[in-house]
Amino acid sequence: MKREVSYCNLPNRIGKKVANKSRLYKHKGNFTWKGVKTEKYKTGAGDWAGIVRKVLIGNFNESTKIHIRYFEIASGGYSSFEKHKHEHVVIGIRGKGKVLCDKKNYQLNFLDTLYIAPNTPHQLGNPFQDPFGFLCIVNARRDKPKILTKFK
Amino acid sequence: MKREVSYCNLPNRIGKKVANKSRLYKHKGNFTWKGVKTEKYKTGAGDWAGIVRKVLIGNFNESTKIHIRYFEIASGGYSSFEKHKHEHVVIGIRGKGKVLCDKKNYQLNFLDTLYIAPNTPHQLGNPFQDPFGFLCIVNARRDKPKILTKFK
Repeated sequence: MKREVSYCNLPNRIGKKVANKSRLYKHKGNFTWKGVKTEKYKTGAGDWAGIVRKVLIGNFNESTKIHIRYFEIASGGYSSFEKHKHEHVVIGIRGKGKVLCDKKNYQLNFLDTLYIAPNTPHQLGNPFQDPFGFLCIVNARRDKPKILTKFK
Repeated sequence: MKREVSYCNLPNRIGKKVANKSRLYKHKGNFTWKGVKTEKYKTGAGDWAGIVRKVLIGNFNESTKIHIRYFEIASGGYSSFEKHKHEHVVIGIRGKGKVLCDKKNYQLNFLDTLYIAPNTPHQLGNPFQDPFGFLCIVNARRDKPKILTKFK
């Protein structure tokens, strides 16, 4: 497994090496954090729509073995339908959304916590009116997803 | 580093080996989850007070490199004052609390995200009236904390 750079995460935007030190990212309200930029979900287009990402842990040279990202899917948006060796943990934080995981459909509400095991086909979507925001926690070192046939 | 069994995490209560498969832990309201037990913060007593833990990810043989725990500190409670090689990520979820981290004092509110770097002395406490709940995300394999002189 290679360290990800261009799939499901964008390169560090800081442009310089920073110290691995303790940091507080204050929530400014409305699911934005001081010092955390809003980024694209992926660099390429085509198999996803209406998602932004905010990397809470992973852009500042932290030595922890995980990255924590906040994703937000606008009404009508959806993520890539994909699978990969690495696991996901998804925790609903804002609004509600849908998850297809291993051929099962779930609704994800506030604090619902979904563990997506290795090699499990999955896709998240927001068929509702309000934004759907969730934390997605992954291993810092992880493999590249395989894009599957879209169901949407 | 050894896999922790008795410090800042209790042994798997399931009593049997379970498959590493996708699972949804529904939030039942009031910061409780279906299938997730309320456990002690630590087995020993003395340097902490008024905390419970709920292991969201880590008790079901998940292969991910991290564990996710929800801790809740009652009014007047506090965690051990300690340091260790492994990192913490703390995300405020319920109420508000205080954190001492590397000689700095922070207040942690909803979704405030604190990265605690390796070997950083830290302690969380709740001097407020309402419960203080937070997610604490750690590497699955981690070292044993060193208890420091209490400041409380």
